[in-house]
Amino acid sequence: MITVLKEGVTKEQREKLIQWFESHGLSVHISEGRYQTVLGLVGDTTRIDDGLVESLEIVQSVKRISEPFKSANRKFHPDDTIVDIEGLKIGGGHFQFIAGPCSVESRDQILDIAKSVKAAGANLLRGGAFKPRTSPYDFQGMRAEGLELLLEAKKETGMPIVTEIMNSNHLPLFEDVDVIQIGARNMQNFELLKDVGKTRKPVLLKRGLANTLKELLMSAEYIMSEGNENIILCERGIRTFETYTRNTLDLSAVPVLKELTHLPIVVDPSHATGHASLVPSMALAAAAAGADGLMIEVHNDPQNALCDGAQSLKPEEFAKVCKNVNAVLGAIRQFQEDE
Amino acid sequence: MITVLKEGVTKEQREKLIQWFESHGLSVHISEGRYQTVLGLVGDTTRIDDGLVESLEIVQSVKRISEPFKSANRKFHPDDTIVDIEGLKIGGGHFQFIAGPCSVESRDQILDIAKSVKAAGANLLRGGAFKPRTSPYDFQGMRAEGLELLLEAKKETGMPIVTEIMNSNHLPLFEDVDVIQIGARNMQNFELLKDVGKTRKPVLLKRGLANTLKELLMSAEYIMSEGNENIILCERGIRTFETYTRNTLDLSAVPVLKELTHLPIVVDPSHATGHASLVPSMALAAAAAGADGLMIEVHNDPQNALCDGAQSLKPEEFAKVCKNVNAVLGAIRQFQEDE
Amino acid sequence: MITVLKEGVTKEQREKLIQWFESHGLSVHISEGRYQTVLGLVGDTTRIDDGLVESLEIVQSVKRISEPFKSANRKFHPDDTIVDIEGLKIGGGHFQFIAGPCSVESRDQILDIAKSVKAAGANLLRGGAFKPRTSPYDFQGMRAEGLELLLEAKKETGMPIVTEIMNSNHLPLFEDVDVIQIGARNMQNFELLKDVGKTRKPVLLKRGLANTLKELLMSAEYIMSEGNENIILCERGIRTFETYTRNTLDLSAVPVLKELTHLPIVVDPSHATGHASLVPSMALAAAAAGADGLMIEVHNDPQNALCDGAQSLKPEEFAKVCKNVNAVLGAIRQFQEDE
Amino acid sequence: MITVLKEGVTKEQREKLIQWFESHGLSVHISEGRYQTVLGLVGDTTRIDDGLVESLEIVQSVKRISEPFKSANRKFHPDDTIVDIEGLKIGGGHFQFIAGPCSVESRDQILDIAKSVKAAGANLLRGGAFKPRTSPYDFQGMRAEGLELLLEAKKETGMPIVTEIMNSNHLPLFEDVDVIQIGARNMQNFELLKDVGKTRKPVLLKRGLANTLKELLMSAEYIMSEGNENIILCERGIRTFETYTRNTLDLSAVPVLKELTHLPIVVDPSHATGHASLVPSMALAAAAAGADGLMIEVHNDPQNALCDGAQSLKPEEFAKVCKNVNAVLGAIRQFQEDE
Repeated sequence: MITVLKEGVTKEQREKLIQWFESHGLSVHISEGRYQTVLGLVGDTTRIDDGLVESLEIVQSVKRISEPFKSANRKFHPDDTIVDIEGLKIGGGHFQFIAGPCSVESRDQILDIAKSVKAAGANLLRGGAFKPRTSPYDFQGMRAEGLELLLEAKKETGMPIVTEIMNSNHLPLFEDVDVIQIGARNMQNFELLKDVGKTRKPVLLKRGLANTLKELLMSAEYIMSEGNENIILCERGIRTFETYTRNTLDLSAVPVLKELTHLPIVVDPSHATGHASLVPSMALAAAAAGADGLMIEVHNDPQNALCDGAQSLKPEEFAKVCKNVNAVLGAIRQFQEDE
Repeated sequence: MITVLKEGVTKEQREKLIQWFESHGLSVHISEGRYQTVLGLVGDTTRIDDGLVESLEIVQSVKRISEPFKSANRKFHPDDTIVDIEGLKIGGGHFQFIAGPCSVESRDQILDIAKSVKAAGANLLRGGAFKPRTSPYDFQGMRAEGLELLLEAKKETGMPIVTEIMNSNHLPLFEDVDVIQIGARNMQNFELLKDVGKTRKPVLLKRGLANTLKELLMSAEYIMSEGNENIILCERGIRTFETYTRNTLDLSAVPVLKELTHLPIVVDPSHATGHASLVPSMALAAAAAGADGLMIEVHNDPQNALCDGAQSLKPEEFAKVCKNVNAVLGAIRQFQEDE
Repeated sequence: MITVLKEGVTKEQREKLIQWFESHGLSVHISEGRYQTVLGLVGDTTRIDDGLVESLEIVQSVKRISEPFKSANRKFHPDDTIVDIEGLKIGGGHFQFIAGPCSVESRDQILDIAKSVKAAGANLLRGGAFKPRTSPYDFQGMRAEGLELLLEAKKETGMPIVTEIMNSNHLPLFEDVDVIQIGARNMQNFELLKDVGKTRKPVLLKRGLANTLKELLMSAEYIMSEGNENIILCERGIRTFETYTRNTLDLSAVPVLKELTHLPIVVDPSHATGHASLVPSMALAAAAAGADGLMIEVHNDPQNALCDGAQSLKPEEFAKVCKNVNAVLGAIRQFQEDE
Repeated sequence: MITVLKEGVTKEQREKLIQWFESHGLSVHISEGRYQTVLGLVGDTTRIDDGLVESLEIVQSVKRISEPFKSANRKFHPDDTIVDIEGLKIGGGHFQFIAGPCSVESRDQILDIAKSVKAAGANLLRGGAFKPRTSPYDFQGMRAEGLELLLEAKKETGMPIVTEIMNSNHLPLFEDVDVIQIGARNMQNFELLKDVGKTRKPVLLKRGLANTLKELLMSAEYIMSEGNENIILCERGIRTFETYTRNTLDLSAVPVLKELTHLPIVVDPSHATGHASLVPSMALAAAAAGADGLMIEVHNDPQNALCDGAQSLKPEEFAKVCKNVNAVLGAIRQFQEDE
């Protein structure tokens, strides 16, 4: 970590700060410029709060050299983490398809879609029971009843289920859920992160709409700091000024995260683009970029259903996506083996 | 609300949609273009989920003509809401200064600052007990103990207190808090919004870092839909590509919100800019823009404290801000009376 | 196009506007709501300035149903445009690799790299002679001399060259250049667009750092409106708050543009990401997303050169990218044929 | 400037880089951490291209301590620059109102508005003759004829004129123009910047829609590096995700620029917000924030005119803005004197 001091800082002020750094086990190198003095800190800076240092009156700016996340850091854990979901593996070369409707709407709907996506190639079933909606007047999901229906679909098809939690109080209801999803809007709901960190369930952690990759990893760190290391990161689009797509899918997040962390990364092209017609090409691109899985919305009857038509694929479209993604993955594995 | 249908939609598909709109009490005007058909919906569209309509396979896009928020809408409630905090009024011409440290650090610190800001002109005391921090390794606040110290400062100075809640489970601890703050990262923690909506306590609702003003008002609507109308909105900067300031303070939010809603609006120039040197001019600008109050970080000893130096004013600087803001407010009141 | 009128607009004001629309050859459907009146315009709205209509005092908002671009619009030109560069085709299933250094630095450098990238699989040579630099103190390129060296490299290798123009006055110098590049910072330099539109040379038009896809297409329309239809669009990353990458590569631009326009689209992963380590995976992803080509920075000696090390591939790395991209393209062609 | 080296850099590579820095007149302090080595550079780093250094293969990142702009830097030029426009001063305590229509539409229109805004309190007349428009089908301005009409309005009213240039070739036409405006879309049209830098005319340089304040100052530096120091900076809103306003007016740009540079800063609330109803409060806020002037769109007949109604004030509304802004400026001068 590097700390740049403001002009005119006195020797005493500087000494005081250096002593504080040293009391945290760091050694300090001083470099004096014409206008500014720079302190280089050597040692374990993970537990130094850079915001706090930057806020000091005598400090102009702070620059981290090493990353502030530790458990999630590939530097200290070079091998890929492989998350095991009821025997199904994700990460470290294991690629999975997560599919299902945006919301659980009825028993027939979820059972029908679950069977369709399984036949089409999905390995995990997704479906929202608790739905975060911008408006209090919009459908808030079937809640506890929706969870029951998901579990029934799991029983029928054998597919593990992924579903979103919005409140720590609901954790008991999620006992039989296989992967707990933290949605984009709760990525920095730190209390919820700590509470899912106390379980040992796999967590699918979605990147917030305006969060950096570093913040995503710090949120993973929250969960890991409580002891739960079963984390799957998910890129689902960020907010920009572009309007043709709902959000901007940041696929460079995949190779960046592969460098920074050992955790698996899946991509959700459905929420990111908001348009079914864009999902197939973005699914192929995500696979080519090195993602460990895809999360795709599928509906059995988007034409008539009053939900998610625009971004949901039909089961037959999803089946084609699975087939084509597998072809691209096959080509990639081939040239990786050749190297 | 206007619904634009895709090319090639059949008469039957169109009829089905029209019937669905009519079953929600709307009447539908049809306008056929060469390539597209447009449906104009007349009636109360507040409870129509435009995301859901937009997601229909036959729909190209949707445009709201009237706003989706109702309780917060100035159209249905033309008079300014005046929030009453233990007799202190905010909104409708009543301007208040909220000041205090970022975090409660100790008994001495909070009592000392409370007295200083009161003497300088503050009307409410702010101070964080539960702190949302990006890193799990950073100081998380004094939590319950911090709340106790705030209440002691309230007792000593008579100033009502404003402090942030991060978890519904903590609500019992906030019984004697005067204004509950919902932080930027929790603006769309819908479960928390509903829970503070069930109380009747004034709520200070901060705009999220990447949220639109419409989303801010929809979050206010969540609280109001549970019966709590004592809401103070707070603009605290949004995330952009600019790096000299921590965030970009969006002061046009003030007149826009004044048009759209009857709720009072305060501005937090400390968090928005991240630099004490920018706070005085942004405080003046916020007052000139028509804000109903200011929320400013003040620390008694930023030089030595290891927290918030950079964006905190010293009490004497804050006193000058109060004096100057009052001068600007005086000039504005003068020409408003003259009109 | 739909025009929503403000509340309280008089019959006379409305009639005046309707007459103005009709005088532009449009027919107008009126739909009256409780609070607002909506005018639906039917006919050729391409030449209606929606900003101008939106700025009228009686108008609340305007929504285009059909796109404002005509020559670039796939609706009126369903077949893919294939740009022919000295016999080399791009678009309509023809994929090309454009490679070379950021800047021409010397005769040896450009000749050496040209030969290397040709051997590795490149079809076109890129290299900057006129360099847009944020600082006046940075290297501004070899300018006219750089163009000469590029032409020499073309002669030696037979590869057509792509290089950036910054000023219409330089057009005579570009007589023997095969593809004229308009850089991101000049995407809305409308005078320059018109001037290259008067030539018949292929133009590679880069998306601006904060421009929407609609604006990109309107800039293409500027060139086409002067008669030049040989346009290759280029996605090169947009500006967001993320800092690990220089910009955020928006790969969903590829399928969106494929829907909206018939023009070919290439992707530049080097400038977008700013890091050589991210280029290979983003190149594969761009190909999988359906791009018509790649533009990649390659340097013969990034280790010692004092330019572009970080985002430039070495020739052998580039050769591997070409090979792997071709494998992915092969897999895609295979399943496209099977369908 | 601080340069952080990557892990695993050899002694030789490091020595080579240090020699290169030293050959540019800098001295280098080395600070070795467990994982990384940091080089602190002392001396005049203005002419070091940090992008170039960051792009070196052995460099992880670069951080500037001192700013890369020199002529525009307040550190080397502590006193406010006062730009003199035909005897009218702006900057250093001199505040000016620039007003007029978006576009010159006719002789009657511009003469009428010129007289109105002068009577209302304007000091300079603005009006577009060459108009940058997103669409080639939109009105491109009256061009040379529009300039003639502006000069006639100047003659009639005595007000200096401000108008936009889009092409260096037009410079001869601007001989009698008092202030040459560089529009937001041309902020990084470096060739144009150099060409206006060769004149000695005052230049009003608008911030680009997605440009940082540092980039704005580097563009000013381009002009100054050619010898023209008569620059007025202009904040006119940046592009964000918010949709109620056309852009987001970044008023914190005013105090930030006041710290960084000695050049005067004006604010354009009309283009930033896009709505006349928001202009008065944003004008007051800009004055309170410390701006040196305002640039406001005024139209004599927005109701009937088919241009700029929405964001243009009527002359009587503008007169009120002038009066109220002067009242706020008066209050500010009062307390500044008292200090």
